[in-house]
Amino acid sequence: MRITAIVEAASGPPPAGEVWVGDDAAIVAPGDGLLVLATDASVAGVHADLALVGLDDLGWKALTATVSDIGAVGGRPRHALVTVCAPAGTDLEHLMRGVAEASARWTCPVVGGDVTAADQVMVSVAATGALAGTRPPVLRSGASAGDQLFVTGPLGGSAAGLRILRAGGPGNAGEAALVASHRRPLARLTEGQTARAAGATAMMDISDGLALDAHRLAVASGVGIELDDVPVAAGASEEEALGGGEDYELLVAVADPRRMASSFAAATLRPPIAVGRCTTDASVRTLRGSPLPPLGYEHRLE
Amino acid sequence: MRITAIVEAASGPPPAGEVWVGDDAAIVAPGDGLLVLATDASVAGVHADLALVGLDDLGWKALTATVSDIGAVGGRPRHALVTVCAPAGTDLEHLMRGVAEASARWTCPVVGGDVTAADQVMVSVAATGALAGTRPPVLRSGASAGDQLFVTGPLGGSAAGLRILRAGGPGNAGEAALVASHRRPLARLTEGQTARAAGATAMMDISDGLALDAHRLAVASGVGIELDDVPVAAGASEEEALGGGEDYELLVAVADPRRMASSFAAATLRPPIAVGRCTTDASVRTLRGSPLPPLGYEHRLE
Repeated sequence: MRITAIVEAASGPPPAGEVWVGDDAAIVAPGDGLLVLATDASVAGVHADLALVGLDDLGWKALTATVSDIGAVGGRPRHALVTVCAPAGTDLEHLMRGVAEASARWTCPVVGGDVTAADQVMVSVAATGALAGTRPPVLRSGASAGDQLFVTGPLGGSAAGLRILRAGGPGNAGEAALVASHRRPLARLTEGQTARAAGATAMMDISDGLALDAHRLAVASGVGIELDDVPVAAGASEEEALGGGEDYELLVAVADPRRMASSFAAATLRPPIAVGRCTTDASVRTLRGSPLPPLGYEHRLE
Repeated sequence: MRITAIVEAASGPPPAGEVWVGDDAAIVAPGDGLLVLATDASVAGVHADLALVGLDDLGWKALTATVSDIGAVGGRPRHALVTVCAPAGTDLEHLMRGVAEASARWTCPVVGGDVTAADQVMVSVAATGALAGTRPPVLRSGASAGDQLFVTGPLGGSAAGLRILRAGGPGNAGEAALVASHRRPLARLTEGQTARAAGATAMMDISDGLALDAHRLAVASGVGIELDDVPVAAGASEEEALGGGEDYELLVAVADPRRMASSFAAATLRPPIAVGRCTTDASVRTLRGSPLPPLGYEHRLE
């Protein structure tokens, strides 16, 4: 089957003793330490407008969003399972090429999957990861009052890129970069592992916008949040940074910001950007002293 | 969220040090030995007719089909991730109740998932499993000429149950049992683990009918297959047993049938049913000396 061939070309042959695509189940070596599991689905018309982005971009995004969740607890992705539901006639090779590119980029081979008919294109990815060493995972719930909050990069680029595509496409290099961050978001895997090693107390990826995701971290940790600043991607708006989502930068709480900064510098990563702090009063949600706008993408079914 | 509550009620609290539903990723203890990974998707209108079966049955089937794939290599399922795509207004609690019932039945807690909007109900399940000990997994490719072939139970029940539902529903206890095997198929997990321990050379679950799946095992192993008999579920036809699919009984090749029979007896399992043998001539596919009919369900998209 051609799809299997594409995946095999991207993932390469399995190590000795492992079984990847082709049998009832895949068999892989156990990883170091705790096992991390994440899953994420991308649906055409909901998570991606196929009039504006390619099937390959949908495939890229589905895999990248899933490995981002592994990175957001400080884990390293190891293996992915990819399920594609699609109408007859869908260019599955095009879709799987994006999956394979993301798989190669994040060193997360696709070891199995399922392909089935459906009325709508849908890609569901499940991934495993390893949490090396004995340090616990970094959860949303670990922040304490007094912890400082950082993000790993400027926000709003994906939302701005979508706006530019809707308006007819990029007119210059800056707009093209925003479109690229919409079509091919990046997972901050090294950043997540480095933050965990540097003692981050809480962490999550920003998939639904800083305002909503910071609120979620605050709820899980039982703290308030005072934001001083929102780093906005060049060409994006602050509203896009707060509410646009799908940037996949990490939101990190730390008690010792200097230690994290030096760990990021030692790993030659972009310095984390300070955005605010956690407070004792769990009802607080402010931006520059005013109430934080209730922005952010929510997947509502009911 | 109510869905999370249903899953948590079914799965119970995680063991100390583990994180299940609610964070970016789930964190679980590593299993013994090799890690087994499988995934399967069930789409309303393709894998289940929601005019005939319930949303809970779709949920049950999606999880059961996935753990069946773990069992089909001799593994023990450990954890499931469940993704549901559905239109607004879908009774997700009803769907997740079936998932939770299967999760409890197969001792495979749901530790994470994703819920998103879509035009059609789709359930994608990924599961991990453990392959205890040092014996290799039992693959489709391990059979040799001279190995005997067995199945773990009579076939065709699921297809017969669907036929009965289409004709207006069951009229007696026998028909009700066939409908139950369509709505709530069983995974042969203990059988798979017992067959592996008893030296099975090749194994797979019969999800697309004995004729097609036996052909697949023969291709993977490079052997021919001579079937003497097809065990047909009471009230089903031989055509349903050969081509109906979704019975999830196991097809097992063994070099030492007496050892497998005594292992099954010691585990108080139904005795495996002899169906034929593997031959040297890899082109052979016969049933009672005649060509095996080319029956079986294939998921074709192109």
